[in-house]
Amino acid sequence: MITPVEWKGDTLRILDQTRLPYQKEYFDADNYRVVIEAITSLKVRGAPAIGIAAAYGIVLAAKKIQTGQAGEFKHKIKSVLLEFAGSRPTAVNLFKTIDRMRNAVNACTTLSDMQQALEQEADKIYEEEKESTQLISKYGSELIEDGFTILTHCNAGPLATGGYGTALGIIMAAFDQGKKINVMACETRPLLQGARITTWELLEHGVPVKLIIDSAAGYYMNSKKIDCVLIGADRIAANGDTANKIGSYTHAVTAHENNIPFYVAAPVSTVDLSIKSGDEIIIEERDAAEVTGIGGVRFAPDNVAALNPAFDVTPAGYITAIITEKGIIRQPLPNNLKRLIL
Amino acid sequence: MITPVEWKGDTLRILDQTRLPYQKEYFDADNYRVVIEAITSLKVRGAPAIGIAAAYGIVLAAKKIQTGQAGEFKHKIKSVLLEFAGSRPTAVNLFKTIDRMRNAVNACTTLSDMQQALEQEADKIYEEEKESTQLISKYGSELIEDGFTILTHCNAGPLATGGYGTALGIIMAAFDQGKKINVMACETRPLLQGARITTWELLEHGVPVKLIIDSAAGYYMNSKKIDCVLIGADRIAANGDTANKIGSYTHAVTAHENNIPFYVAAPVSTVDLSIKSGDEIIIEERDAAEVTGIGGVRFAPDNVAALNPAFDVTPAGYITAIITEKGIIRQPLPNNLKRLIL
Repeated sequence: MITPVEWKGDTLRILDQTRLPYQKEYFDADNYRVVIEAITSLKVRGAPAIGIAAAYGIVLAAKKIQTGQAGEFKHKIKSVLLEFAGSRPTAVNLFKTIDRMRNAVNACTTLSDMQQALEQEADKIYEEEKESTQLISKYGSELIEDGFTILTHCNAGPLATGGYGTALGIIMAAFDQGKKINVMACETRPLLQGARITTWELLEHGVPVKLIIDSAAGYYMNSKKIDCVLIGADRIAANGDTANKIGSYTHAVTAHENNIPFYVAAPVSTVDLSIKSGDEIIIEERDAAEVTGIGGVRFAPDNVAALNPAFDVTPAGYITAIITEKGIIRQPLPNNLKRLIL
Repeated sequence: MITPVEWKGDTLRILDQTRLPYQKEYFDADNYRVVIEAITSLKVRGAPAIGIAAAYGIVLAAKKIQTGQAGEFKHKIKSVLLEFAGSRPTAVNLFKTIDRMRNAVNACTTLSDMQQALEQEADKIYEEEKESTQLISKYGSELIEDGFTILTHCNAGPLATGGYGTALGIIMAAFDQGKKINVMACETRPLLQGARITTWELLEHGVPVKLIIDSAAGYYMNSKKIDCVLIGADRIAANGDTANKIGSYTHAVTAHENNIPFYVAAPVSTVDLSIKSGDEIIIEERDAAEVTGIGGVRFAPDNVAALNPAFDVTPAGYITAIITEKGIIRQPLPNNLKRLIL
């Protein structure tokens, strides 16, 4: 299975996802700032994969800190954690990783223990994410019936998660069970993760997929061509409100209007019980140039302003179920989410 | 005011809209097949503009028919009409133009009368469309309040209509009345008419506009940043169901869910009373290459299939009002549409 990052002991090998599917280009980061840049520029993306990359990026930083003093090390590593926290604001996995790495350091007294604890915690985060996607795939595949056409948005496959994928893991598991399924993949403007990565991952696995523009999804839902919508998540609030790639909210509303089940697949690490509702989720606003052009080719007039929110929030009421490694959470989401996770 | 086509007496000057906004390239068609190709490839686009271009294309064909016999002329012009009918299937204006041109020929007995009648009919179609947009702008501007932010999709401006524009004509008229308005223009994948043409036409007129990706529209509607949605139309059925650029249906559903008025602006020529509902409207399926890449640059995997419906149908129930040159038609649309038009 292809992985977004690979830990080499003193470097982090990263697949540059911005160049897929035509170039499969890896680079070795030996400096944590290279990892931060990779997260910011979406070379590595997808909420769980961002968490994993950040964990190893912090280990890289730790290895470079020049000091013999535990106190100074702790001080320096905390400023690194702050830098990582500034890389992308919406996916909660990043912040949970930072918390876990901070706790790992705080639990140690000697410098060598701290360094060892950080590397062990990073490995543990990676392993947990991988195991989670396996269970999510298993549970979620039960919702996919033979003959289903599944609509998905953006990319929640192996490259987004470091494991089997959440939404795509479920689809691949259902396919492997011999169910005849079809996928409609939304291209996912502006950065086209659906067109470039989702279609590629599904084709590699042999799953029949058709690419559509994002705004054709409603047409196919209304034409009764879609049996369910299945997406990943970047942050899920305590009440079930879910932040995911821009466009997800609109798919949810349209699915609701057409009585089509709308499923969110995400590891528990994506749930943020510290926030009550989606209103508290910070939506990343990215560079307007992603909207005014594609791949360096500008098509909008020179003097036009553009807005580029990277995510939106789907209110819990539109979500039929959330599929986690602890099981499938159904309505009422606010109660069932807390009960299953706490 | 910029126009999509200009009749020169023996050639039709066409602005190649596929190259906007960076190249303002005109070409002179002296052969009707060049006009058909321009319609098929969207060099000229927008339901009313397609009708106008087709009318003059038919005149061009008539001028080239080598015969002294009225019967043979009539026979040959009818095969030209059939060729035009095959150029694009969804916009009804094309078919109404063809009907009018056929009737113009049928009303004459001599060859020179036929040729003259065709040219006069083409001029009349153009004039009527221009006048319609002026009245639509006037009526529609009454719906736009000071301070409104208006969401629009695709392009329904001067270049789509041959006059002031329908949706954009209304926006420009409201702006000229001194109302402080803002526009959010959806880029309109796959061919980006919103990003390339709508933004450009609005900026030329001085109207503040922000470009967004199509799937960010729902986010802004749900964030209470949009006061109304205003689009054009390619065909309106007798019951008010409206075919327009792919994505319009989804905007209508999302607007409805967020209690935002959804307005359609179109000349009466776009209404097709011969069809009962949107189910009878043929949706053009265009080349998959428009979806798998942009401007000749492919970003999707080589072996992926894509679907590319160019239009969708918004059921009448989601439409707050249709703005025509005969006035504003409100719910119940099926009754009020027939009453105002018949």
